[in-house]
Amino acid sequence: MVNSKNYDSYSNLWFTEEEGHNLKLDYRIKNIIFDDYSSFQHIVVADSYDFGKMLILDDAIQTTTADGFIYNEMISHVPICSHPNPEKVLIIGGGDCGAVREIAKYPSIKKIDMVEIDEMVVMVSKEYLKEIAGDKIDKRINFIFADGVNYAKECKEQYDIIIVDSSDPVGPAVELFSQNFYENISKILKNDGIFACQSESPVFYSEIMKKIFKTLQDVYNDVKLYTATVPTYPGGLWSFAAASKTNIITDSKKLIGNTRYINESILKSCFCLPEFVVKMLK
Amino acid sequence: MVNSKNYDSYSNLWFTEEEGHNLKLDYRIKNIIFDDYSSFQHIVVADSYDFGKMLILDDAIQTTTADGFIYNEMISHVPICSHPNPEKVLIIGGGDCGAVREIAKYPSIKKIDMVEIDEMVVMVSKEYLKEIAGDKIDKRINFIFADGVNYAKECKEQYDIIIVDSSDPVGPAVELFSQNFYENISKILKNDGIFACQSESPVFYSEIMKKIFKTLQDVYNDVKLYTATVPTYPGGLWSFAAASKTNIITDSKKLIGNTRYINESILKSCFCLPEFVVKMLK
Repeated sequence: MVNSKNYDSYSNLWFTEEEGHNLKLDYRIKNIIFDDYSSFQHIVVADSYDFGKMLILDDAIQTTTADGFIYNEMISHVPICSHPNPEKVLIIGGGDCGAVREIAKYPSIKKIDMVEIDEMVVMVSKEYLKEIAGDKIDKRINFIFADGVNYAKECKEQYDIIIVDSSDPVGPAVELFSQNFYENISKILKNDGIFACQSESPVFYSEIMKKIFKTLQDVYNDVKLYTATVPTYPGGLWSFAAASKTNIITDSKKLIGNTRYINESILKSCFCLPEFVVKMLK
Repeated sequence: MVNSKNYDSYSNLWFTEEEGHNLKLDYRIKNIIFDDYSSFQHIVVADSYDFGKMLILDDAIQTTTADGFIYNEMISHVPICSHPNPEKVLIIGGGDCGAVREIAKYPSIKKIDMVEIDEMVVMVSKEYLKEIAGDKIDKRINFIFADGVNYAKECKEQYDIIIVDSSDPVGPAVELFSQNFYENISKILKNDGIFACQSESPVFYSEIMKKIFKTLQDVYNDVKLYTATVPTYPGGLWSFAAASKTNIITDSKKLIGNTRYINESILKSCFCLPEFVVKMLK
């Protein structure tokens, strides 16, 4: 994944990501590909030596061309495979278009509504991060550039799968972590539907993870946490939550697509949690 | 795990770990507890804000009181549980005494020989890192301060379990990654014995990981890679290798001890590898 070649000359440009007060990660950068402000946030695409191109929103790395596939595969294939027959999908967030690209690999999916607040993130990803966003046009994907919180409140349809692929709960994503939002999402999820979201780091943001889990337990019958290791996320270990009004299938054999992280054994074992995470959820 | 409290005043002391040319991790440090040179390496114990006390050898973080249990549980419980009836254990390296402490939790173990080249690492860990090393005296543990490479060459005994708990293949640990060493280890491992070692990061040091795996495959009948996520190791994802002349048990129910990372489901699921790691090993 990482390819630390012996370059003849290195740039002395570094991008520093601060994780709380006491940890910083410094990535050596070849050059800045894009740097602008949308109505919502500061958007940067930087080309790094070790992790390829990085999408950085308000100084936080969201995804990279080297390891972005891990997050995007885990937030999409797991809910799709946990459902008996998914046809209609809603994604809230996911502006890098990596999750929607994974979901579109399933021929059974008939419609994907993707509600992203910041159109500039989608435009930038499609232009500069084709390794993540892909370059195919898929008529099943319906882009809606709107506030996901309002969309969930006012939506009259129901979905088989709803995925909240948000950034951290600061800036434009704060409301995507509220109880009110989760309740509105529940109303537009079919009875046998699956909800999935990223639920932050069990190491650095365990309080947020626990809050998401407990809030979902108030709304759903079956809530399961699953994890993956994403090298450019602080501490590596990252959690996701899946929830169902009925039950979540964890032994599916339906995985398809040319995946690089998830496979049938990961699809099952991702629900096996380290003991300290098990204890956090009790 | 991480506890970023609002301290009244922060130290401006940082420890920077360089991972290759293009990535640096900076940990804010409260103070330096120990700083000296042994005959083999530079030994530092630093008290960090986010990860507790850190053992740093030649500028590389080896273990911390916040997440050291992950590595130490995985390098010890997995081989112990993969063996039908382990009694006699050899550890080469493991100077922080975390692995030997985990192994000593099993009453069936009658003898543990621990061969560590650098006595000062053991002394420092027992004095300043009691959270990892423990403070019990166990008569089954026999400390041998010697070169593990020579020990393996000249040893006349045979063991049920041999664990190589080494630092990275630079400095004093280089020879612990050589084919010659693996062959000597094989001679002192019983026919139904289990060998285990840390096999580096699949993300940052995949060439070393692949080399260890291939070298073990030349010597053993059954070789399996397993992983864990260790937040203070670069990229989080870390690999270990287990090897047997016969076969490795992966569905053991023998796990004991008050563990914080490993549990019965992790003991089994740790052998489930991400697809990019599966492909690397082919």
